[in-house]
Amino acid sequence: MFIRLGKRSIQQFRHFCSGTGASSSNDKYVPRRALLYVPASNPKMLDKAPKLQVDCLVLELEDGVALTAKAEARQNIRKYLDNWPQQHACHEVGVRVNSVSSGLLADDVTELAKSSKLPDAFMVPKIDSVDDLNTVWKTFRSAYGDQRIRNTPTRMVIWIESARALLDMPQILKAASTLHKSAQFFRTDAVVFGSDDYCADIGATRSNDATEIMYARQHFVACCKAYGMQAIDAVYIDYKDVEGLKKQCEQGKSWGFNGKQVIHPTQIGTVQDCFLPSAERIDWATELIKEFEQHQRGGKGAFTFRGHMIDRPLLLQAKNVVELVRNVKK
Amino acid sequence: MFIRLGKRSIQQFRHFCSGTGASSSNDKYVPRRALLYVPASNPKMLDKAPKLQVDCLVLELEDGVALTAKAEARQNIRKYLDNWPQQHACHEVGVRVNSVSSGLLADDVTELAKSSKLPDAFMVPKIDSVDDLNTVWKTFRSAYGDQRIRNTPTRMVIWIESARALLDMPQILKAASTLHKSAQFFRTDAVVFGSDDYCADIGATRSNDATEIMYARQHFVACCKAYGMQAIDAVYIDYKDVEGLKKQCEQGKSWGFNGKQVIHPTQIGTVQDCFLPSAERIDWATELIKEFEQHQRGGKGAFTFRGHMIDRPLLLQAKNVVELVRNVKK
Amino acid sequence: MFIRLGKRSIQQFRHFCSGTGASSSNDKYVPRRALLYVPASNPKMLDKAPKLQVDCLVLELEDGVALTAKAEARQNIRKYLDNWPQQHACHEVGVRVNSVSSGLLADDVTELAKSSKLPDAFMVPKIDSVDDLNTVWKTFRSAYGDQRIRNTPTRMVIWIESARALLDMPQILKAASTLHKSAQFFRTDAVVFGSDDYCADIGATRSNDATEIMYARQHFVACCKAYGMQAIDAVYIDYKDVEGLKKQCEQGKSWGFNGKQVIHPTQIGTVQDCFLPSAERIDWATELIKEFEQHQRGGKGAFTFRGHMIDRPLLLQAKNVVELVRNVKK
Repeated sequence: MFIRLGKRSIQQFRHFCSGTGASSSNDKYVPRRALLYVPASNPKMLDKAPKLQVDCLVLELEDGVALTAKAEARQNIRKYLDNWPQQHACHEVGVRVNSVSSGLLADDVTELAKSSKLPDAFMVPKIDSVDDLNTVWKTFRSAYGDQRIRNTPTRMVIWIESARALLDMPQILKAASTLHKSAQFFRTDAVVFGSDDYCADIGATRSNDATEIMYARQHFVACCKAYGMQAIDAVYIDYKDVEGLKKQCEQGKSWGFNGKQVIHPTQIGTVQDCFLPSAERIDWATELIKEFEQHQRGGKGAFTFRGHMIDRPLLLQAKNVVELVRNVKK
Repeated sequence: MFIRLGKRSIQQFRHFCSGTGASSSNDKYVPRRALLYVPASNPKMLDKAPKLQVDCLVLELEDGVALTAKAEARQNIRKYLDNWPQQHACHEVGVRVNSVSSGLLADDVTELAKSSKLPDAFMVPKIDSVDDLNTVWKTFRSAYGDQRIRNTPTRMVIWIESARALLDMPQILKAASTLHKSAQFFRTDAVVFGSDDYCADIGATRSNDATEIMYARQHFVACCKAYGMQAIDAVYIDYKDVEGLKKQCEQGKSWGFNGKQVIHPTQIGTVQDCFLPSAERIDWATELIKEFEQHQRGGKGAFTFRGHMIDRPLLLQAKNVVELVRNVKK
Repeated sequence: MFIRLGKRSIQQFRHFCSGTGASSSNDKYVPRRALLYVPASNPKMLDKAPKLQVDCLVLELEDGVALTAKAEARQNIRKYLDNWPQQHACHEVGVRVNSVSSGLLADDVTELAKSSKLPDAFMVPKIDSVDDLNTVWKTFRSAYGDQRIRNTPTRMVIWIESARALLDMPQILKAASTLHKSAQFFRTDAVVFGSDDYCADIGATRSNDATEIMYARQHFVACCKAYGMQAIDAVYIDYKDVEGLKKQCEQGKSWGFNGKQVIHPTQIGTVQDCFLPSAERIDWATELIKEFEQHQRGGKGAFTFRGHMIDRPLLLQAKNVVELVRNVKK
């Protein structure tokens, strides 16, 4: 690789490297090695949520909450927000609302907006098109108002779950970035592959080795990374098969995924261990940043490291590795 | 999954579920587990066609008919249409014309249009672009006239056979849907992967395990399903290898394909057995539809089934499973 | 397959087949079974370059040349051009400049343009977008002037090395073709997959079996072939593992790749042997062309060969096979 810093971008690069960009509360790197769902219709599980040792916690209004329990689940989450626990063991608590096509989204968001507090992230399933994304934006804006949308470091996480969505990912992720920059809408920094719904949509059968979604997963990663977002891998359905889970974690990690959905708390440990960067990778990242800072002090705009010229995306990856490790080890 | 019924679409959904949509003669689900080619230049084989126990029969004017035999083959098909057999053992008899780029399409269609009858489906190979599709539409319209195009429940089946076509599938299939809706042109409900020509186009070598076309096949399925069309898989070239055929059928089915091309009548049984839905799948579909109808009587617009909220595409899949089984078992 | 010769294209087809198209110096088929990098900062290696028995030689200004050595490396290449060796053992000598985003491209090209001679090909890494391509065009045009751009049979080879570039390949390659035709800019006839940078970009880990880039490689081939360009495969990183290299060569060849990058001279033999067409393939190509020429003499525009109608892309492939073999065996 080689320096990818045109003259125009050097200033941005320095700004980025000075830390005023990446480390603002809105742009920080959030570990999401494992992402666990907690049905918001279950008060007992909500009570336990603050203690769950998982990177990313999804308070769930969509799947796993029956239609008849939606209203109550919404109120449970509003109360959870009102009485926001002093400490969570996780790095992110998100609320997953219902999809645009469900017709339930506006009711979800209206109830949540009654709380003066916002979760770390809003999570929206079944984004099938740029139109869906625009509807999400309008719904949130209408319920929360411009000011809260613009002044709050809340993030967005979206789900890709259909063939149409998978094919249109480049347009969808581009629109998500544009919305964030132009409308100052919540920043989308992670995308989750809804593998079960995807398979149902194309009529495929889920298997443990996941050959049926190989193209989908690798295309998914390419799209996420092309737009600078984390890629969260498919659920491993056979939750009793720890070896199989481990194998699929390692595969996903080596393909570029940043984390994985888990359907059972027993999967958390295996998944989070796997998605922790290796000692080799941590060393690479630490040394790269150190050398970069030395070169910065020397006033140079580009540098080589271990035989490669270092570009901005690579420096960002190194910073993310270090930030991930720092967060999960504290 | 979850209800994907926005308020606007509930009426459409009910319309669809009432059967006036899906079961009109034009929109019905046609089993195409196996698709067999019969060269129209061979009168003996045409004579046997009505008795062939295959879901989908292709009376062939393109490959398999020598240039010098094209004129005669066209006339054979016109006669076949004129004297349309009272009964076919298959579910669909289609006529495959020559491609746009061959320069022979207009002559094919002109001859066929002389018959007062139309086949169940027209089949067009080598659709390489939206332009090709528009040329097909103009050629048929010119030969058959607006009224026959609009008032006839004839379907279209198209072939994707080049790298360019594979990459442009989303645009091509979208254009096919639009043509059907806006110009009331024949409805395209199935797409066939022309694997041999695809491999020739990219310079790949066909192998029995088909690793060389893994990306192509999975991308192909995603595109077909994104536009609500059946996906028909590659030919298995080694026609004496029954075990290999079976394995590739099962693979294709588990990836979301609805059927497979066969090059030899001995392949029909293996392929059709494989692409028959499993007892488990049939049970799922039957129960889902039953519960849906009960909820409809109760006036509810959405419902859960076996722990999942049911959306329109899933209900459609269930209906297709039931319709497929009903058809092939009668 | 079948004739893809619409009435309009028959004349082009004859023109093409007459050899005035394909065999002009600019349009000729260049064997690139193996592509080897030679750092231009190393005068000793430059001295040896004319004797290297590799199809395609890359005099390298980008990776492998330290920032501090760029200026000297540029001058070395200018001198190499000025004193162009009477004979090279290779089929193409290209110069790889630095990428658009490096900010170094203009300096590279300005220095190179001082020589009255041009290499066989200019090679540009990290083409991430159509904008990058336009910048390349402007930079070369500005340094070389319109006339040299238009009157010189120099070719372009470009590198795809990021997720964004991989997804946008159809647009990028289309733009490259358009530039060549409309602006008479150097013709792009080969694209190289920068697998290491791609993996770094998506956060994937390179492995010997390369599963992590399966989607990327097969999508890459489809894009190259859709736009009539050669596809050059990933580096095999474990350069001591000859068996592994051979296996990956065979895989790449069977998937449609035309050649492979090599990082060590010891890899050249294995790679070039593998990417030599098989005796079977050479026989197919030779016979096809022979029959075509017989049909041409008979005044016929289309013909069948071994049970298939022959179309233009296939005839072109046959000609390329013959030309490749003729070149590498002389």
